[in-house]
Amino acid sequence: MTQPWILHEDRALPADPVTRPIAREVYQETKDLPIVSMHGHVPVEWFADDTPFPDPAQLLVVPDHYLLRMIVSQGRYGLNELGVTAVDGSLPTESDPRLIWRRFCEHWKSFRGTPTRFWTEHELVKIFGVTQRPSAETADAIYDRIAAELATPAFRPRALLDQFDIEVIGTTDPAWASLEHHQRLAAEGLGQRVLPTFRPDPLLQLDNPTFTHDVLATGAAAGVEVRDYPTYLDALRAQRLRFKAAGALATDHGCATPDTTPLPDDDAARLFDAAFNGRPVAAEQVTAFAAHMLFQMAQMATEDGLVMQIHPGVERGHSREMTRRYGPDKGYDIPFAVEYTRSLRPMLEAFGHHPNFRTIVFTLDEDVYSRELAPLAGVYPAMRLGAPWWFIDSPEAMRRFRETATETAGFLNLSGFVDDTRAFCSIPARHDLARRIDAGYLARLVAEHRLDLDEAIDTAKDLAYHLPKLAYEPR
Amino acid sequence: MTQPWILHEDRALPADPVTRPIAREVYQETKDLPIVSMHGHVPVEWFADDTPFPDPAQLLVVPDHYLLRMIVSQGRYGLNELGVTAVDGSLPTESDPRLIWRRFCEHWKSFRGTPTRFWTEHELVKIFGVTQRPSAETADAIYDRIAAELATPAFRPRALLDQFDIEVIGTTDPAWASLEHHQRLAAEGLGQRVLPTFRPDPLLQLDNPTFTHDVLATGAAAGVEVRDYPTYLDALRAQRLRFKAAGALATDHGCATPDTTPLPDDDAARLFDAAFNGRPVAAEQVTAFAAHMLFQMAQMATEDGLVMQIHPGVERGHSREMTRRYGPDKGYDIPFAVEYTRSLRPMLEAFGHHPNFRTIVFTLDEDVYSRELAPLAGVYPAMRLGAPWWFIDSPEAMRRFRETATETAGFLNLSGFVDDTRAFCSIPARHDLARRIDAGYLARLVAEHRLDLDEAIDTAKDLAYHLPKLAYEPR
Amino acid sequence: MTQPWILHEDRALPADPVTRPIAREVYQETKDLPIVSMHGHVPVEWFADDTPFPDPAQLLVVPDHYLLRMIVSQGRYGLNELGVTAVDGSLPTESDPRLIWRRFCEHWKSFRGTPTRFWTEHELVKIFGVTQRPSAETADAIYDRIAAELATPAFRPRALLDQFDIEVIGTTDPAWASLEHHQRLAAEGLGQRVLPTFRPDPLLQLDNPTFTHDVLATGAAAGVEVRDYPTYLDALRAQRLRFKAAGALATDHGCATPDTTPLPDDDAARLFDAAFNGRPVAAEQVTAFAAHMLFQMAQMATEDGLVMQIHPGVERGHSREMTRRYGPDKGYDIPFAVEYTRSLRPMLEAFGHHPNFRTIVFTLDEDVYSRELAPLAGVYPAMRLGAPWWFIDSPEAMRRFRETATETAGFLNLSGFVDDTRAFCSIPARHDLARRIDAGYLARLVAEHRLDLDEAIDTAKDLAYHLPKLAYEPR
Repeated sequence: MTQPWILHEDRALPADPVTRPIAREVYQETKDLPIVSMHGHVPVEWFADDTPFPDPAQLLVVPDHYLLRMIVSQGRYGLNELGVTAVDGSLPTESDPRLIWRRFCEHWKSFRGTPTRFWTEHELVKIFGVTQRPSAETADAIYDRIAAELATPAFRPRALLDQFDIEVIGTTDPAWASLEHHQRLAAEGLGQRVLPTFRPDPLLQLDNPTFTHDVLATGAAAGVEVRDYPTYLDALRAQRLRFKAAGALATDHGCATPDTTPLPDDDAARLFDAAFNGRPVAAEQVTAFAAHMLFQMAQMATEDGLVMQIHPGVERGHSREMTRRYGPDKGYDIPFAVEYTRSLRPMLEAFGHHPNFRTIVFTLDEDVYSRELAPLAGVYPAMRLGAPWWFIDSPEAMRRFRETATETAGFLNLSGFVDDTRAFCSIPARHDLARRIDAGYLARLVAEHRLDLDEAIDTAKDLAYHLPKLAYEPR
Repeated sequence: MTQPWILHEDRALPADPVTRPIAREVYQETKDLPIVSMHGHVPVEWFADDTPFPDPAQLLVVPDHYLLRMIVSQGRYGLNELGVTAVDGSLPTESDPRLIWRRFCEHWKSFRGTPTRFWTEHELVKIFGVTQRPSAETADAIYDRIAAELATPAFRPRALLDQFDIEVIGTTDPAWASLEHHQRLAAEGLGQRVLPTFRPDPLLQLDNPTFTHDVLATGAAAGVEVRDYPTYLDALRAQRLRFKAAGALATDHGCATPDTTPLPDDDAARLFDAAFNGRPVAAEQVTAFAAHMLFQMAQMATEDGLVMQIHPGVERGHSREMTRRYGPDKGYDIPFAVEYTRSLRPMLEAFGHHPNFRTIVFTLDEDVYSRELAPLAGVYPAMRLGAPWWFIDSPEAMRRFRETATETAGFLNLSGFVDDTRAFCSIPARHDLARRIDAGYLARLVAEHRLDLDEAIDTAKDLAYHLPKLAYEPR
Repeated sequence: MTQPWILHEDRALPADPVTRPIAREVYQETKDLPIVSMHGHVPVEWFADDTPFPDPAQLLVVPDHYLLRMIVSQGRYGLNELGVTAVDGSLPTESDPRLIWRRFCEHWKSFRGTPTRFWTEHELVKIFGVTQRPSAETADAIYDRIAAELATPAFRPRALLDQFDIEVIGTTDPAWASLEHHQRLAAEGLGQRVLPTFRPDPLLQLDNPTFTHDVLATGAAAGVEVRDYPTYLDALRAQRLRFKAAGALATDHGCATPDTTPLPDDDAARLFDAAFNGRPVAAEQVTAFAAHMLFQMAQMATEDGLVMQIHPGVERGHSREMTRRYGPDKGYDIPFAVEYTRSLRPMLEAFGHHPNFRTIVFTLDEDVYSRELAPLAGVYPAMRLGAPWWFIDSPEAMRRFRETATETAGFLNLSGFVDDTRAFCSIPARHDLARRIDAGYLARLVAEHRLDLDEAIDTAKDLAYHLPKLAYEPR
């Protein structure tokens, strides 16, 4: 390939010659809408400090577990050879960013057919102006090109917020966060643009090895002295309000299952006391307490109006050895089947019609789209169905989501697109891909005379912009 | 939109320019075939009494839980504000049909992408001659138009049977039904056109609060004095025969799971005695007895030749509060995952090759199409796979059904299209949609040279007409 | 249809006019690649003895459970009437091959939309030169045509290996196989072309009624006197090496579930002793031992480098009566849901990064593609995802496999196409179909500008030829 590497303007639109022109027309109406990125994992410090990104590998490879896991799966390089530090000190870490970048480019072929390929192309061509397809041969030239861009002020985090037209971005923060970075951003006029999200997972999991420490830290941050179950609830309630005061619109729950069965208060108090005082709690009771606390979180949401995001169904750190060596979020999280109909029932029966309760439910298990989640979101006013997430945030999977959820849930019971990434530069690519896939799906409805064109355009705008705004509307 | 609202003649046919003309050709051959509607929930009184429908809201909105649930999910109106009576008297019921109709029209946008949108369009335009898209502005004009039509003799139930070209329609009737309406219809020459279906669910569920009453009522209807388990079986057997004599071709089983494991007779008798005499029965034993009785129903089917329809996998009344307030079938029924391979084994091992046994198995869990149901229907002569049902009786889901079931089950192990609705006026729309989707699927097989056109047309006629006739053929 | 029956050259390629020409271009590049058939069930004797096939029915109908099950499902003929011997002597077996062939041709309609239809068309037209569509009327003429071909030397098994361009074919052999047929083939220069595969299922299942006999037979074949658990492991290890010496590249595991949880050695030894000495073993312990032994097989694979193929999730002999009467593999095997994330964890944690371990994991449960198998194969270097298998080795299901597995696993973590058939003449048809479906999928990626054409062609060749070679590369 000697021609310059150019992305086709119709990429990811349907191929058939009747549908494509309609899809193009729909996409034209959404492609320039601002980005609402209410759920993600970009570190708040990047915006608070606004320091330049060090190099292409540290920006694009090392923090992106989608890239890392695919390269690891090919068997040539371990994570340490890709710049990930072995926290147990068992292996040396590759520190030459150029070498890490080369290893990524060598593996370009292995990304064919994956969304990573699509996002990375977008980033390289659209953001960094790269004109060559990645390969062992072109790795250095591409590296130099990106490194040169990163050295300019236009590529500092806050400037990229503007360049990407990100209207608002949510970070994910531990329940005990001091929120100082968000306060600094607020003082500098970015308080409405970079918002914290309350993530209490470790506080709800009695077998968390640092449970007592985390609970006390949360109490300290909230100004509540935790001694027992009631003061623990007080600390959670208070800290939620502190987050809300700092701009938070939502909480996030990465629970193992979406079970929301409450326990009698006495039982919950007794289990809390045991764990808080370092006594062992049986596995079933750990699980039961987590379900109980999910119910409590919903209760608190009816009080403070924070939107409750539920992200269940992942076996974190599937390879315990690799997790011990490299820490969490390195590509070893594997989904499993999850039940929602009975699990969410206690919460939805109690609060599903409550005017102040809002929950957005996500899944990595596509089976439940048509069987459980769309039927639930299609009747309970409080529930929205979250966009495809993580592994299934990809062209084919997004299309399947539209095809399996829409017929029962409609469009207005969805949250619109939610990117959920820690790879900052992939955010515009992800939203662009979602808008293209939605344009294609809606164009097919038009081509099949199931929707009029004006309705398709209106719905595309809803999905890209208005529904995320509405789903997380401040209350 | 100032132009009159017209439905495109190619709606729901595939968009691509190679496949559409073939689909059109196939659809032309099935669109005017009579409707065989062997499974549904239209009340038999409508036909027996042939009274005019009171108003548009009572005909099209209040009895249709698909419409109700979508409006409720948007959070503005409760069921009582849509004309549904709160049976506990807790809330006033909106009694102005014009206001109910307006509320539905206001929510027209929320139905985009759903089958309800497709069916309703068909009803409004094709049956009632409406020429405006529903909205808050057009609601009253549309109301008047429909109300005027309903006042004419052409829109009375029996006239609509003719207008819709319904060759035969099955109603669903409780096991203790007197069948007087069906007898009246028979006396008036409609005995071959409106058929009862035997639905014994409450009699097989030992935790049914009115179990003893329902059993005694069934015995009374059948002329059998029930005292114990053997006479209970006698009553069921006798009442099945009474239904058969009144024209019934099938029984219907809305069981929680499709488990068919029989118990030893002594155990079954003991459990029956306990429940019949008002003593408590443990939850597992309630479940075990239900499975046992499903097996008994299959056994009886080998004797009387009634087709056994199995519809499992729904949590009825997911919100117990709403169910207490409004009663069953108001949109709060939510599917869950169901296992068929092991559950149906006892029944299929015993009767799956029996020349007089026929069962049609339905699902709301699409996962089992390719994994369990198609492999089972593809070998056991007694079993057919029911068409997509309820939530999955929609364009995309019907297409998925064809794509995932056909390759293993073929077409001849299916029951053909079964509408299963209580919304009478949606019956022609539902059959029309199914015929369009099948035409599109078969056209694709032709376009991909996997089937010849003559075969595609022959198969389309099978699915629309011949297979339902065959599946429920009187014996 | 009076014109001769001709297969369209574009069959199974996408219909849309933009994608089809690209698909044709991709398919042109793979259609003539040699066949690598590393997993199948063609009896080794066919090649060792090279005797002519007796007649069309014995070649194409009687051994093919896909055909048999579909005909049985139509209710007119039992298996005995299709030439299958009732091993319990309860029913006479039809012995007239022409009559069996006629019964198959009568049922031609029932195969519409199934892959059997596609494969059989290919066999009849491309291999045997048939020019008439099968039917009751044409059955005899077709029979005569095939019978005439079978009488020629060109249709003897070894000649067909050449005609089909099969570079290498794996047979499946019991763990106690003497391997004499393979040795004879090796002596005649076919040792690199027809390879044995080690299948130890009955030795890992303590409730196998002939467990002790099978273990002793394996020991005898391996030259190991089995007395206890350690010598049992020795026999397995030694016999694996004998298979490897005879050319084997892989082992095959048709386990009920993919659970790989090891037991403490003492527990395993005690369970083995009980079963080996004819004492009863509880069902849960049978299951636990099978999981333990799957782990041991993985351990041995790290030692001898044989590729471990895992094929779980089938209820064998669903109708016990039919299985007693006709034996296994007669169409009564039905899939069920299977869990992989937690089941494979012990094996993948222990050996998933081992440089000498390779496992290929198959499924009949499509739900796990995107949820479990692609995420696992997309990170563990030792694991590849097997191609669609058995019921899901069909046009629509292969397309779904590409759409749901590729985005997370990419293409390079797959094994490429594996046919897994006992119908020898269907092998070229199956590979041809897979190449067509892959061409269609890749062409869509090109048409949607998600892949460049050169990449699509390169990937198509990988899937058809290079990946199967690599996945089973001798070590």
